Amino acid sequence: MLKSILGISPPRVEVNKEDDFDTWYEQVVVKGEMIDHCCLPGYFILKPVAYGMWEKVRSWLADHLQPLELQSFSVPILPYLGDRAQAPYAVSGSSSFPNAESVIYPYCRKWIKSHRDLPLQMNQWCIRFQHEQNPQPLLRNCEYLLQEVRSAHITKDSARQEAAQILELYSLLYRDLLAIPVVKGYKNAAYLQDTDISTGVVIAYIPATNQCIEGAKCHEFGQTLSKAYEITVRDPSATAEPAALLHVWQNCWRISIRALGVMVATHSDNHGLVLPPRIAETQVAIVTAQASSTDEQLILDTETDRLVSRLSSAGIRVKVDDLEGYSLGWRFNEWIVSGTPLFIVLGPNEVTNQVVTIRRRDLLHAEGKVEAAIPELHTIIPTTLANIQEELYRNALAKFQADQTRIADNWDDFIKSLYRDKLVCLAPHCRQRSCELYIEGMGSDGTDQALGSHIRCLCVPLEQPGATEECTTPCINPTCKYSALKWAMFGYAY
Amino acid sequence: MLKSILGISPPRVEVNKEDDFDTWYEQVVVKGEMIDHCCLPGYFILKPVAYGMWEKVRSWLADHLQPLELQSFSVPILPYLGDRAQAPYAVSGSSSFPNAESVIYPYCRKWIKSHRDLPLQMNQWCIRFQHEQNPQPLLRNCEYLLQEVRSAHITKDSARQEAAQILELYSLLYRDLLAIPVVKGYKNAAYLQDTDISTGVVIAYIPATNQCIEGAKCHEFGQTLSKAYEITVRDPSATAEPAALLHVWQNCWRISIRALGVMVATHSDNHGLVLPPRIAETQVAIVTAQASSTDEQLILDTETDRLVSRLSSAGIRVKVDDLEGYSLGWRFNEWIVSGTPLFIVLGPNEVTNQVVTIRRRDLLHAEGKVEAAIPELHTIIPTTLANIQEELYRNALAKFQADQTRIADNWDDFIKSLYRDKLVCLAPHCRQRSCELYIEGMGSDGTDQALGSHIRCLCVPLEQPGATEECTTPCINPTCKYSALKWAMFGYAY
Repeated sequence: MLKSILGISPPRVEVNKEDDFDTWYEQVVVKGEMIDHCCLPGYFILKPVAYGMWEKVRSWLADHLQPLELQSFSVPILPYLGDRAQAPYAVSGSSSFPNAESVIYPYCRKWIKSHRDLPLQMNQWCIRFQHEQNPQPLLRNCEYLLQEVRSAHITKDSARQEAAQILELYSLLYRDLLAIPVVKGYKNAAYLQDTDISTGVVIAYIPATNQCIEGAKCHEFGQTLSKAYEITVRDPSATAEPAALLHVWQNCWRISIRALGVMVATHSDNHGLVLPPRIAETQVAIVTAQASSTDEQLILDTETDRLVSRLSSAGIRVKVDDLEGYSLGWRFNEWIVSGTPLFIVLGPNEVTNQVVTIRRRDLLHAEGKVEAAIPELHTIIPTTLANIQEELYRNALAKFQADQTRIADNWDDFIKSLYRDKLVCLAPHCRQRSCELYIEGMGSDGTDQALGSHIRCLCVPLEQPGATEECTTPCINPTCKYSALKWAMFGYAY
Repeated sequence: MLKSILGISPPRVEVNKEDDFDTWYEQVVVKGEMIDHCCLPGYFILKPVAYGMWEKVRSWLADHLQPLELQSFSVPILPYLGDRAQAPYAVSGSSSFPNAESVIYPYCRKWIKSHRDLPLQMNQWCIRFQHEQNPQPLLRNCEYLLQEVRSAHITKDSARQEAAQILELYSLLYRDLLAIPVVKGYKNAAYLQDTDISTGVVIAYIPATNQCIEGAKCHEFGQTLSKAYEITVRDPSATAEPAALLHVWQNCWRISIRALGVMVATHSDNHGLVLPPRIAETQVAIVTAQASSTDEQLILDTETDRLVSRLSSAGIRVKVDDLEGYSLGWRFNEWIVSGTPLFIVLGPNEVTNQVVTIRRRDLLHAEGKVEAAIPELHTIIPTTLANIQEELYRNALAKFQADQTRIADNWDDFIKSLYRDKLVCLAPHCRQRSCELYIEGMGSDGTDQALGSHIRCLCVPLEQPGATEECTTPCINPTCKYSALKWAMFGYAY
């Protein structure tokens, strides 16, 4: 047995999600072969499993963004690595590094020669750097991959429309590809003074830690940047000559590989990764059992080839595991840890009876095993994969909405739900920055310091729980003298 | 007229290729909208035209590499930016930066657990940095995009086979996509002492400067790296236990955006970019002329839409130029400078007569204009595009092979062809490093210092001009006492 020769024991996740989320998460992404640590803390190698998923995100977005006719650029990164990226090397005088904005917007000015060039939507698939005190693979990388679009519009309406469309798209990506429910909304009062500026976000939820996390965002800068960088066009509707100069309206929208980290944190369990079928590189593994004779092996190989070709024709990503020298249990374990949605054992018995057992990764025990006739697999498997995708989403949604979210309309309920029950709360809010700070600072106000410091006003959801557009009750905060304007979402922020 | 309002004059290349290649090249890539300069010298923004081409290179390679089942990784770049990348910021103590090898190969060791993991072919689409004294967009970027594969094999044969296959593939990419002929070969004597190590290259030729340039390469490291990093597997064919450890055989192959620079330098002319149709984002531009009435405009729009839909169905990338306020000549000029292979004027007359004039970018004058019936365009245009692709390749090949290459079998011919006629020479060569250095140093030996310093032994071509495998004449160098082993290629190196 090669197993004993090599002395390799099967990879197992050794910590429970509910006991020690950080260690569990770390083990799941490493043992599931998504990432490996690099030579500096906070830097991670994306292995083929994770890189393949990022490519799926990329091609999903490319397909869905096609109608926008984005223009793709590649801007060098060295000129704006930024001082934080240099931190590991303790470079001095680095505060004079230019940032991404100061590199890109002067070009934006140059490239926008007339209103005909608008909307300009500059797309980049690139790398960014940030300083992370407590790095965590995918979720908090010091160096990470992202899609970033910087756009310029002739009117505020056009910019707003784009932002709404993009929030919808990012939210669809989370739901459709990653089986994760998100809440679309706008960041609250921080920018309220200058009404041109706002930030749309999609907020996801990690049930194991009761934490909410920003999954993607769209900054609406209004005319702030175009005024700073003098990005203007002549008014095309002007009748006088020369036509007046208009400052353009700018957005910046981005989604990063953090999306994959959110997916892992949401669906995976104490046995390892659980991957939604749409994002999984291998959707079905066929684990072949040992044949006892050459003839039997020949029949088994023929059946395997036929099954692979029929599944592939049905659009299924299938892989054969005919690894010798390892027990079936050892090999199952590898498929379990790596999160493959379905696996099938195919051996001489199965070929004779023309029946196999399909095992679902998301339901490991008896309820996840289904007997199925081999000739029907090419129709049963696509349906099962679709069910898995759907059920992962439904479970995540149920946890977020029903179990973990409260609509609170009085202060006691609000505080109790937030601090004691650790729920996400929707509460009527005045949208004043000072009031937001008061609530976020409640922890230091005597309730629970450690937890309180992570409570945040996450967003003002686009879909309000009330029937009317404007909220009519007073602000949730009893010390606040204003009326509520909207329902705002509060909770533990990642 | 908007033109006069905006005061924009059409972009024109103001320098001739034959007069001042560097300035011409710079203007062609900037005015053809491929690149823009960034805030640091040597750093360039790839604009949509160039980035789109790089994506075509990427997808061509992805298609052709599919049978190899490469594994795609993303390795952080900050840990090995390297000291040269830091040069613009004059960072001190930077010589202690790790390099790409010292980051990646320890992982290679970790990931290769058994012979089953071989061949391991780690693919990356990534960024690299290099110091460039005389930066030139695409050809000599300080920061550039590339594909890089690091592979490990169990036998020397397997590694050699891969290298040969990859050289063939890169050479096909140049021919098929970029319409550029290349010579496949191996770097000569520098590594001859250690026969495990060699470097395969594809050499392209830039006619305007009589310079050869490395278009892509494949390093064969033999077991050098596996010995340095202790990358071993157990011998799968061993009968004794424990099986002996074998050091793996490693290659590294790469192609960069330089390929696009070589393409520009080869095909473009004094009017701007000339793009091979397969790499061009827009293959056909339909330039619509002004209609004199609303009715006429309606008819024209209908005809345009019909033509676009028929060309698109035929797989042609087509764009309509209905820019108002600019003269036809001004608009033609933009399509010429940007290198679009074909453009068509479509106006009320053309619609009435159902005949248009197709203008070829590669043949700007009378010979490039063809009258064609509109209903036949969807068959004529694909053929014309294929012809352009083919002719660009044939012209480049003719220049390289017939006009610019000499087979020299005596010293006088060799020196005269190299130094006076500035040709590429194939000459019988002993493959000794000292002899190669003697020839490369001829410039400093009295002949022509300035030119001589750029003469290099470019490669030993895989296809030898002689009928026999081994060359039988003495070495070309009369001061050399050895027999020739192969025909080697000498010329001005970029």
